[in-house]
Amino acid sequence: MPNQTAAMLVIGDEILSGRTRDSNMHHLAMALTDHGLSLTEARVVADDHAAIVAGVNALRGAYDHVFTSGGIGPTHDDITAEAIAAAFGVPITQRADAMALLGAHYERQGVPFNEARQRMARIPDGAVLIDNPVSIAPGFSLGNVHVMAGVPRIFEAMLAGVLSGIAHGKPLLSRSLRMLRGEGEIATAFSAFAALYPDLSMGSYPFNTNGAFGTNLVIRGTDAARLDTALAALQAHLA
Amino acid sequence: MPNQTAAMLVIGDEILSGRTRDSNMHHLAMALTDHGLSLTEARVVADDHAAIVAGVNALRGAYDHVFTSGGIGPTHDDITAEAIAAAFGVPITQRADAMALLGAHYERQGVPFNEARQRMARIPDGAVLIDNPVSIAPGFSLGNVHVMAGVPRIFEAMLAGVLSGIAHGKPLLSRSLRMLRGEGEIATAFSAFAALYPDLSMGSYPFNTNGAFGTNLVIRGTDAARLDTALAALQAHLA
Repeated sequence: MPNQTAAMLVIGDEILSGRTRDSNMHHLAMALTDHGLSLTEARVVADDHAAIVAGVNALRGAYDHVFTSGGIGPTHDDITAEAIAAAFGVPITQRADAMALLGAHYERQGVPFNEARQRMARIPDGAVLIDNPVSIAPGFSLGNVHVMAGVPRIFEAMLAGVLSGIAHGKPLLSRSLRMLRGEGEIATAFSAFAALYPDLSMGSYPFNTNGAFGTNLVIRGTDAARLDTALAALQAHLA
Repeated sequence: MPNQTAAMLVIGDEILSGRTRDSNMHHLAMALTDHGLSLTEARVVADDHAAIVAGVNALRGAYDHVFTSGGIGPTHDDITAEAIAAAFGVPITQRADAMALLGAHYERQGVPFNEARQRMARIPDGAVLIDNPVSIAPGFSLGNVHVMAGVPRIFEAMLAGVLSGIAHGKPLLSRSLRMLRGEGEIATAFSAFAALYPDLSMGSYPFNTNGAFGTNLVIRGTDAARLDTALAALQAHLA
């Protein structure tokens, strides 16, 4: 059975303006590769209702899972939950389960559970809450869309919870061969080699560090023994 | 006149697998903000012909400029140039101008201009070459799509050349107020404040560093004096 596919939707003006460098996409990519889900596409959109709705609807129809980050806090620019509800065409309300979680949290902290904080209990009908062990305000899963916070520590904690509920696929493994030879020198031989292993994915990644040019050749697949065999053959092929 | 809009298409399996953390998107976001172009959407797709064609066609129809990174090297997995030609429905050939550039470069280096290296002279009909001062193999602009290398040093050098040919818009400026108060504590006051400045964009970005929670409040606009006025008023408003 092929691995399930996944996509990411990063939501946030601050990423597109360059103010913040996103780290959640890279974290998700590594986590899904380990878990055996294939991250196939990622998009970044602004804090814009129509853009979020269009993005989520395009991705949830095309992939098995969609993971979103950002826009679920208490301020006026946090519009993700409303947009997800609109994308699914379902109502959104301050749900009793989320209100109870947040109310107890702020009571323990001796902090008022004010109107802004109550906004974080707005959850689309039919969604399942995602646990937030860092700061309590929950994310949620609606259908195949998992809606998480943008703050990296919280995103990562929520993702761990979501993935614990998704069956493992075969982790995508890789083997790398780093060469101090330019891509153009080895490309023909590498292409011919790749054609001998149609079951594996092979990529060539040039680097340029302190004026030195070189190439990382990467072989990917799900069978460790097969990868080791191919790596040894590649070393011999290019020797 | 509003600023022109832009989108990015990052092409590369290595980003989606988590092997490589993309840095070109963040660099582009900062460079476009400085140049006065509005980066409105970004997508990451795999080294897959259909995915590149679909991505480029969706973005070039929706935005004034599209910037791509990755997939223009000499190896079998470098399929971006062919996909861009297919997206525009134009032929692609080894063009004389690109052949001359590359031929002279490899002759100077005393390195054979082999078949793999000649692949890097494949340029869609009607495209204008983008200068590569780092390693010569050119990018190209076709219509409103600017096709650049994935290696960050080369991407950044190519982008500088492309931007020198695009008229400056008004740079998007920002002012930030960092507070050691949670978003939920200031959200209502901040939302009310933002409503007083409909010409400015205001965002709230929580952080969580070593267990301390706080919020960066960011005001964005193109008029420096107006931003300074708003920042002073915000400080008074939240004092």
